[in-house]
Amino acid sequence: MQTLLQNALAGKQRAVARLITQVENNTPTAQQALAQLHAHTGQAHIIGITGAPGSGKSTLVNELAKEFRRREQTVAIVAVDPSSPFSGGAVLGDRIRMQDLVSDKGIFVRSMASRGNLGGLAMTTTNVTSVLDAVGYDVILIETVGAGQSEVDIASTAQTTLVIEAPGMGDDVQSIKAGILEIGDILVVNKADKPEARRTIKALQAMLQLGHSTKTLHHGTLVESQAVVDSAGWEVPVQPVTSLTGEGVADLVTHIEQHAVWLKNTGNLALHRQAQFEKQIRTLLQAQVWHSLVGPDLEAVLADVTARTLSPQAAVAVLLSRLAG
Amino acid sequence: MQTLLQNALAGKQRAVARLITQVENNTPTAQQALAQLHAHTGQAHIIGITGAPGSGKSTLVNELAKEFRRREQTVAIVAVDPSSPFSGGAVLGDRIRMQDLVSDKGIFVRSMASRGNLGGLAMTTTNVTSVLDAVGYDVILIETVGAGQSEVDIASTAQTTLVIEAPGMGDDVQSIKAGILEIGDILVVNKADKPEARRTIKALQAMLQLGHSTKTLHHGTLVESQAVVDSAGWEVPVQPVTSLTGEGVADLVTHIEQHAVWLKNTGNLALHRQAQFEKQIRTLLQAQVWHSLVGPDLEAVLADVTARTLSPQAAVAVLLSRLAG
Repeated sequence: MQTLLQNALAGKQRAVARLITQVENNTPTAQQALAQLHAHTGQAHIIGITGAPGSGKSTLVNELAKEFRRREQTVAIVAVDPSSPFSGGAVLGDRIRMQDLVSDKGIFVRSMASRGNLGGLAMTTTNVTSVLDAVGYDVILIETVGAGQSEVDIASTAQTTLVIEAPGMGDDVQSIKAGILEIGDILVVNKADKPEARRTIKALQAMLQLGHSTKTLHHGTLVESQAVVDSAGWEVPVQPVTSLTGEGVADLVTHIEQHAVWLKNTGNLALHRQAQFEKQIRTLLQAQVWHSLVGPDLEAVLADVTARTLSPQAAVAVLLSRLAG
Repeated sequence: MQTLLQNALAGKQRAVARLITQVENNTPTAQQALAQLHAHTGQAHIIGITGAPGSGKSTLVNELAKEFRRREQTVAIVAVDPSSPFSGGAVLGDRIRMQDLVSDKGIFVRSMASRGNLGGLAMTTTNVTSVLDAVGYDVILIETVGAGQSEVDIASTAQTTLVIEAPGMGDDVQSIKAGILEIGDILVVNKADKPEARRTIKALQAMLQLGHSTKTLHHGTLVESQAVVDSAGWEVPVQPVTSLTGEGVADLVTHIEQHAVWLKNTGNLALHRQAQFEKQIRTLLQAQVWHSLVGPDLEAVLADVTARTLSPQAAVAVLLSRLAG
């Protein structure tokens, strides 16, 4: 494992890919590796890209990667598909994208399917992001395919979240329906060359003026009960882009960089990181506590609960006393 | 609380509703109440109803409730909407449905929105179901609005799961796309009076013949790693219904009753219950362990992790040693 870690830290893509596979399978080796990599993390800017199917996310992500490369940043792309627990499309997705980007050593691409392990997908994404951060990628793009709460969870790993809209997908702005607009630090209207795009842009701007404190809500969620007072509140921009031609992508990247500066200056970046670590520690702790309790104790208690002679609440008290004793 | 519990157990709907509100808010009182109610649970048949938006779930659920009433069973309906964390439509939903069913004291209707607490929605649904089971409803119908993994999680509370399809919603069977067909014990083709319904029925039947062991997969998931050998395997039926006229609903209820008998005779019911209790104990345990650790210890550890002098993995070891000591 030490060789694998050293090769990964030296920037060897094959070693990075192997390490990520370990992380995806959540092996004991992976946890050791993550522990050792921790000291190397904290440099990357992590960007989440989300939006309804058909909004042209993948093309936009490719264009974003190219623009960051032009600015001499190295880029890792993680494409996560939480919508289908039975999907096996990850490898195919990799290949299609790689055709465009494969020749560039400063770009790393990885697709992840949920593999029936959806509950853990957000945590796996966080861990994969930590690996990519530690081995030195400047920018990490997390693209989530699909829409809904799973996406919101996965996007919470990101420091800057883009919500992508496209015109002409029906009367409504798609992301409003899915309830994901609230998590956007930057709203992007893709396919801006279409005549209907103006209407979508106006709808989003109107909504932002109504909502105004969208951003406070977002960070309110991230740090849970801890209130964030933004004396310098972030004004969520609406950026039109045409990802097929690349138009507007440079402006979008400038917005992203401005958001990164804002996060740092206001202390929101530190709060976000702390919330992420708290979540990670909580998950690890729970796994270990459960692991240490599985066995004859658990079986005996379960039998009593099933027989209705013990309530689940009383069962927990019994198990906790075993743990402490 | 004792008065509330007694009134609920005596079948007073207002007391049941108040108890469920406590459970939704996860108050300490709620956990005490659930502990006391536990001995009264285990009699209800819990039925999950899921399917893509537009499949006519709500109307079908109403018809199912009426048919169970004709068979002299009392019925509770729980409608869960996981798709919108910002939804406030629960009360309105209640009223619309109640117009149809309000005069019948043998029917209880409750709508639940996720209220931003999606992670806990499956567990809250399980707890609400336990209350309704304990106070004596014979049949509990859990209807999930929306599609995706959240629905699958919520449906796992159910002992019998119906997946509803409707023809004419595009070329594909909707539930295949959403990946939820696999959880169906009974597949229902609603709006069967439409000419396109035959095609949908045939597509589902063809799929079942291909898959064959769909059912084993379902219970394989529920009891996790524990393999279930079904010597008398459940043959998943495809039942056409027209919920607007009620045609086919009686046959559907007969299938549901047959599935209940099958669950009991094969031991799958006991396995399902045990898996549910294990999940519940796990959730409660995790909440209590975390609660007991929050405080100065956690803050100190988090500061070190954020400063990169301690890895999250090492932090967990430190916290666990505090818990044991």
